[in-house]
Amino acid sequence: MLHGLMMDQPLLISGLLQHAERCHGDTEIVSRTVEGPIHRYTYRDAARRARQLANALAALGIESGDRVGTLAWNGYRHYELYYAVSGSGAVCHTINPRLFPEQIGYIIDHAEDVALFFDLTFLSLVEQLAPQLSGVRHFVLLTDREHMPLHSTIANLLCYEELLDGRSEQYDWPVFDENTASSLCYTSGTTGQPKGVLYSHRSTLLHSYSSSLPDSLGLSAADAVLPVVPMFHVNAWGLPYSCTMNGTKLVLPGPKLDGASLYELIEQEQVTLAAGVPTVWLMLLQHCEQNGLRLPNLQRGIVGGSAAPAAMFEQLAAHGVQLRQLWGMTELSPVGTTTAPLYTHRDADPATLRRLQTRQGRPVYGVEIRLVDDAGQPLPHDGVAFGNLQVRGPWVLSQYYRRDLDASLTADGWFDTGDVVTIDPDGYMKITDRSKDVIKSGGEWISSIELENILVGHPAVAEAAAIGVVHPKWDERPLMVVVLKPGHSASRDELLAFFEGKVAKWWAPDEVVIVDQLPHTATGKLLKTTLREQFRDFNWPA
Amino acid sequence: MLHGLMMDQPLLISGLLQHAERCHGDTEIVSRTVEGPIHRYTYRDAARRARQLANALAALGIESGDRVGTLAWNGYRHYELYYAVSGSGAVCHTINPRLFPEQIGYIIDHAEDVALFFDLTFLSLVEQLAPQLSGVRHFVLLTDREHMPLHSTIANLLCYEELLDGRSEQYDWPVFDENTASSLCYTSGTTGQPKGVLYSHRSTLLHSYSSSLPDSLGLSAADAVLPVVPMFHVNAWGLPYSCTMNGTKLVLPGPKLDGASLYELIEQEQVTLAAGVPTVWLMLLQHCEQNGLRLPNLQRGIVGGSAAPAAMFEQLAAHGVQLRQLWGMTELSPVGTTTAPLYTHRDADPATLRRLQTRQGRPVYGVEIRLVDDAGQPLPHDGVAFGNLQVRGPWVLSQYYRRDLDASLTADGWFDTGDVVTIDPDGYMKITDRSKDVIKSGGEWISSIELENILVGHPAVAEAAAIGVVHPKWDERPLMVVVLKPGHSASRDELLAFFEGKVAKWWAPDEVVIVDQLPHTATGKLLKTTLREQFRDFNWPA
Repeated sequence: MLHGLMMDQPLLISGLLQHAERCHGDTEIVSRTVEGPIHRYTYRDAARRARQLANALAALGIESGDRVGTLAWNGYRHYELYYAVSGSGAVCHTINPRLFPEQIGYIIDHAEDVALFFDLTFLSLVEQLAPQLSGVRHFVLLTDREHMPLHSTIANLLCYEELLDGRSEQYDWPVFDENTASSLCYTSGTTGQPKGVLYSHRSTLLHSYSSSLPDSLGLSAADAVLPVVPMFHVNAWGLPYSCTMNGTKLVLPGPKLDGASLYELIEQEQVTLAAGVPTVWLMLLQHCEQNGLRLPNLQRGIVGGSAAPAAMFEQLAAHGVQLRQLWGMTELSPVGTTTAPLYTHRDADPATLRRLQTRQGRPVYGVEIRLVDDAGQPLPHDGVAFGNLQVRGPWVLSQYYRRDLDASLTADGWFDTGDVVTIDPDGYMKITDRSKDVIKSGGEWISSIELENILVGHPAVAEAAAIGVVHPKWDERPLMVVVLKPGHSASRDELLAFFEGKVAKWWAPDEVVIVDQLPHTATGKLLKTTLREQFRDFNWPA
Repeated sequence: MLHGLMMDQPLLISGLLQHAERCHGDTEIVSRTVEGPIHRYTYRDAARRARQLANALAALGIESGDRVGTLAWNGYRHYELYYAVSGSGAVCHTINPRLFPEQIGYIIDHAEDVALFFDLTFLSLVEQLAPQLSGVRHFVLLTDREHMPLHSTIANLLCYEELLDGRSEQYDWPVFDENTASSLCYTSGTTGQPKGVLYSHRSTLLHSYSSSLPDSLGLSAADAVLPVVPMFHVNAWGLPYSCTMNGTKLVLPGPKLDGASLYELIEQEQVTLAAGVPTVWLMLLQHCEQNGLRLPNLQRGIVGGSAAPAAMFEQLAAHGVQLRQLWGMTELSPVGTTTAPLYTHRDADPATLRRLQTRQGRPVYGVEIRLVDDAGQPLPHDGVAFGNLQVRGPWVLSQYYRRDLDASLTADGWFDTGDVVTIDPDGYMKITDRSKDVIKSGGEWISSIELENILVGHPAVAEAAAIGVVHPKWDERPLMVVVLKPGHSASRDELLAFFEGKVAKWWAPDEVVIVDQLPHTATGKLLKTTLREQFRDFNWPA
């Protein structure tokens, strides 16, 4: 092989902040702090403090490859940890505080975190967990001396600002193999223990390039970006990296994620792009509606995490905000697809554009997607056939951290997302179901999500779950388990009749059961495994 | 080191076209052919034919690492060569047909090209060169049987379409080290023989990501891009790669680069972004002006190659076209900096924005720039101090092809661009001169370009060159060598007086010499080396 004659420079996370310091030194990072006030400084300040923090980490004995845990909101100290920990060769392990305490304990133990940095919000949680966390050598509270508790059950609780105080601002970021581990994030499914995804510097940098492209998040130094999606949730969709890459002003909302607080930040900081789950956008829209407010600065929004309803796109468009759907997974760093339009869509009618917006989207370069049946055979991209979505690419996991390889990839090296999707002729993917939830009736598949979406349209229904229950003739048939709204009533027959004309006859559920409540995970997902267990021996009407 | 657990996938050029085929199969590549008609097909077609071509290359005995030369305009067959040659592991060597024939012969010989693919336009040139090109085993004319010459002095002249005809459309692109050489481009300076820059798959892919970012060229699948910059000139600024990465419609202008032909393509193909040197934009604007035409579809323009005049930005803005300056070099793949605005510029006054537009710009992530004096000491980024621009990054050359290492980089691993620049506090770079042309007077530097720009503002001056000539007291002093417009006259004293109030007194040239013509290189650059030689013994007035 003839090698090219180009400079051999590894892709490293430390390079991002060095670039921002040199080229965007005056650009701001604004944070709503846990302590209350708005904090503002620049990429230049962040770079200086990240170097101080890297020196502090070395003084604590944290070495290359060590895992350093964080339990923190979106804020500048958390941002400094992202860069100082990964930049110095250690692994920044962001932990989701919304999980059950026992899951958090499991994660810290499984990751073998040697230090834990956490916000004031999580002091009592950490105090509760600390006795079991025998591997954690340092507990550091992300605050200043003034806000340190007078007493804590944690011995030698360290204060972040004291840790930095007086440290040298000189630190030479080490240069190493770009495949070195940089960060770790656990994903909690509905079954089993959380599983860790171990990112590398290379995967993070390539994901930053890709997710910054015009057809992905479209990040520019002319933007001010509000990541409402938490930094403990797949690195806030990578925004702390990608915004730094592009010298984008960062606005970090801290713990206050209600509509009023977000609105205030958007307007005061002239945010041009915000990113969050549908609930966040709903709260923001409600706040605007209830108070007769407009969003004159905001230009674009990114919504992901779960499917956004069609009305949301129109409501935001009325504010002049262009909303774009994003689909991703912890295992994909996370950005897989977005709904950016094609050249051929410039003359498309509104109905086509609406249909497009509510799909999960098409991949930008670097993510490959394929649609296969249970036997691994390719299915047509006709927008009708639905099957398993599998992905491949340099920022897709190859293996969960400290788990068996065999659980992660297909025999030919693809990651099975567990999503059941369609792909239309233009390449836009739409999630139909989770593969474990899809209902297999007479050799065909029925989307549980589609049945649920229909039934929650009934005025009396608060929440609905569709599950497949073993059936003597059809293998499985759909059963609806429903919670009614308080003060409402609806009969079984009325609810079953509600499907008429809305789905093919053989898709319509055979039975409805009304219950008081449905089981959920800590992060609010429907626990269909529990439901399936509960209705395992359901007797179909003869 | 702890390694991340992400998929190990090399960055390869073949992946770009595979992505476009899968995700943008219906998107068009439109070419104005050398034979005359407009040719249109899709990324799907291009991918299919690139596989046929890869099979044809194998049949010709072309192996991994072999150099394959091209002498061709921007068109679909040239595009297919980009992908088939590099994708199969060989090196696509694009040759600039505007060089002197002896330079072209030198380049083909130095690169050891084993095959040469060329457009009909260059048949007689290649016939003239062929007898000396003993290493070239295959000469392939990029046309169909119908357009093949009845007679040619080239024995066994092959026809491109015949070469492809009936070839299998199946070809598995090989997977190899991403540092493998992919393409080769020679840069011709004003002295010495042309020097080869050997790109790798990795450098090409990273450059594609970076140059597609919103603050660089900003490429989207919603765009239709017209690269007027030739594919033999630093890979048309990388557009055949980056447009494929983003599924952008490509409009390739072939040999017709006049204002009328470009206008026709822009309007017929609804081009949203065009890229070319200032002369191209000038011709397009003149065509519009002379014929009372507008540019309703064109949204953005990229100008590079040499500094664009301030008026051009305003003239295009009047058409609704936002022009952005790009600075690059063959050694930089080529994109180094662009003039995308910052967040702080959203309220800037028109004068500030104008000043910004006419700078060469700031780097996007991946290119590092530094400003140093002749001793390698850093100079302030104050927009005033000017010094040597040096660059570093994964798509910057480390060494010229088959040349001594010592000629290429500084001792600490930076590439010296040979440009003398200022960098302002916002990070925007402005080229002041070439380092070999800057005039060193009494230990201070005087920009030759600035003196030339002033003098061409005089109504009687057609062209002006400022050179440093040895001076007994000041080391060097500026001498202007001037060509007057036909039918115009101006005295020495009048021309010298024209500098008053426009530059510092000690910058003003000491003497003006009027000549009939100035020497140029084959690509139209002023040959100041020849001038300096000519005026080496100039006697300064006492």
